[in-house]
Amino acid sequence: MRVGDAWYRSIWRERDAARVHAIDQTRLPHAFEVFEISTLEDAVRAIADMQVRGAPLIGATAAYGVALALAARNTPEDLDDAARRLFEARPTAVNLRWALDRMKRTLATVPAGERVDAAFAEADRICDEDAQVNEAIGDHALGLIRERANGSRPVNVLTHCNAGWLATVDWGTALAPIYKAFDAGVDVHVWVDETRPRNQGASLTMWELMNHGVPCTLIVDNAGGHLMQRGQVDLCIVGSDRTTANGDVCNKIGTYLKALAAHDNGVPFFVALPCSTIDATLASGGDIPIEERGEAEVLTMAGAATQGPCRVDIAAPGARAANPAFDVTPARLVTGYVTEHGAGASIDAVSAPAPAAATAS
Amino acid sequence: MRVGDAWYRSIWRERDAARVHAIDQTRLPHAFEVFEISTLEDAVRAIADMQVRGAPLIGATAAYGVALALAARNTPEDLDDAARRLFEARPTAVNLRWALDRMKRTLATVPAGERVDAAFAEADRICDEDAQVNEAIGDHALGLIRERANGSRPVNVLTHCNAGWLATVDWGTALAPIYKAFDAGVDVHVWVDETRPRNQGASLTMWELMNHGVPCTLIVDNAGGHLMQRGQVDLCIVGSDRTTANGDVCNKIGTYLKALAAHDNGVPFFVALPCSTIDATLASGGDIPIEERGEAEVLTMAGAATQGPCRVDIAAPGARAANPAFDVTPARLVTGYVTEHGAGASIDAVSAPAPAAATAS
Repeated sequence: MRVGDAWYRSIWRERDAARVHAIDQTRLPHAFEVFEISTLEDAVRAIADMQVRGAPLIGATAAYGVALALAARNTPEDLDDAARRLFEARPTAVNLRWALDRMKRTLATVPAGERVDAAFAEADRICDEDAQVNEAIGDHALGLIRERANGSRPVNVLTHCNAGWLATVDWGTALAPIYKAFDAGVDVHVWVDETRPRNQGASLTMWELMNHGVPCTLIVDNAGGHLMQRGQVDLCIVGSDRTTANGDVCNKIGTYLKALAAHDNGVPFFVALPCSTIDATLASGGDIPIEERGEAEVLTMAGAATQGPCRVDIAAPGARAANPAFDVTPARLVTGYVTEHGAGASIDAVSAPAPAAATAS
Repeated sequence: MRVGDAWYRSIWRERDAARVHAIDQTRLPHAFEVFEISTLEDAVRAIADMQVRGAPLIGATAAYGVALALAARNTPEDLDDAARRLFEARPTAVNLRWALDRMKRTLATVPAGERVDAAFAEADRICDEDAQVNEAIGDHALGLIRERANGSRPVNVLTHCNAGWLATVDWGTALAPIYKAFDAGVDVHVWVDETRPRNQGASLTMWELMNHGVPCTLIVDNAGGHLMQRGQVDLCIVGSDRTTANGDVCNKIGTYLKALAAHDNGVPFFVALPCSTIDATLASGGDIPIEERGEAEVLTMAGAATQGPCRVDIAAPGARAANPAFDVTPARLVTGYVTEHGAGASIDAVSAPAPAAATAS
């Protein structure tokens, strides 16, 4: 999507070269910097240090990491070693394993002399497919926004966290319909939840939308319910980290509270997700273990001060904190789901019979 | 309440002297400092600069401000002038007008020679009455916590913002029952909502509870719904800035979201309030205008860095923000109300027929 006057993906390869570039997301929103990934070690570091984040982007980075490793040392043992090191960089990322398995499977039957080219080509395909899936989500959900335009004021969409193009290769999931609507000339405005504790809304979603020119306003996570009570939200669109067989949605902590408020105020609540994140092995969301992250994310806040980047203590000294990273929104609170296959009121209606990622993981 | 080994109120007068001290709340939680209020100007500045905050404490400070003004220049014109200047220091604070009206009414019939002593005595009474009202709230609500103790784990109370002794003269409203329970030996633990954008939970409520020794854990505002889903919250207790005739509760932004989550999970949701904050002139909460505060509270965050106090930009540069300060929790989501008169399921059941503050305002 657009950054200033140029168009970017979150990761890209130089044409026919063994050089990959990505946007350094640890520097956003205060600085826009592109860094080069030219070795396996670069790819491992980029994933571990969260220079790249978001499940699809992590997978794409890992795929390029495999290709770069083979470009340096091309034996089956090197392939296995690269996959192991990449996986250990962020072992809880579902798409990381999926992408590595796909690379290994594809390369298993390729002669040694063609393996490097094949690896780069497969990584390119993973990126292109991700962009296509997300663009399809945007196309399928565009109507949900357009049908709410009434000419008198913008369609107000509320979103939580960052399910934008920075979390994917391009387009994003929850933000794809917003970009599609904006590009189609629909008068759209986005309420962006700050999304404590890591503030992905304030830093990444606001940055994305502003760079593309989409009108948007930052709010604290506490404010969305009030805005819905006062009729200032027309629909909510969020992403999903994992969706269970019954349609329960595991997403960034706080999503459930917005779904409750939407339900209480008759505001439609949509979830945009690639089918690769549907986990048919889980019957419902109560079964999902919730990652408990470190206290420092709650007790401190990173930002830019006059003298440069700065992290401040915001809590009473000595305070303890709990930091569950996700919550589960029950299917009864979800108005509809949008995948690359379409939009529908149930997850079954929009799931592919056998999505590639589900069979591969 | 307790700070280290000593006991404090948020404001106090030296015995029989025209000198008042208060805790500087702009320095909390990173420094505990007491400052002196010895002139009208000191009182005006303390209110305007939010060294004192919380409706009851602002009223008490204004009452002492009147007494200090008269101690310097004792004419009816000086009284009116002092009241005007104090009111203008924070004109939206309801208790500020209430306290000033009470001081003027009391002093109207007092001979000039007795007026200064009478003013200090009335300000002392305002403070003592506030502490008594809050302690009564604590006594009436203690049973709500005690009856949930089961010996196997602490009673988990979730609270939002700071409705503690720092917001009042002593005890607090929502926190009074928690202090009473803790002092009575009930095994209690408090989940403290950070309460963006001003972080009163992280900074003030955590500081209060930790100083008194009450076990407590800080969470981001997004986390409470998830904790309720997983059975980790036994009851919620919040304060109220204004409660309407039908029992709708206007309180810090985000309260409504927690009430929705409590209702969805069968967790009792209680509101602790002095009757002085009941506004019988408003039929319901939809009529309440909601204060929109400045963008900087959302776009930046204050805290302590290695080099001292520091404010950081946390949002994408150039971002705009909206900042509604309160929301309204409908009465249908409130399990019960606790005032100085008792605990009950409806606001009518616990309202005094004609509370002093309501008739005076």
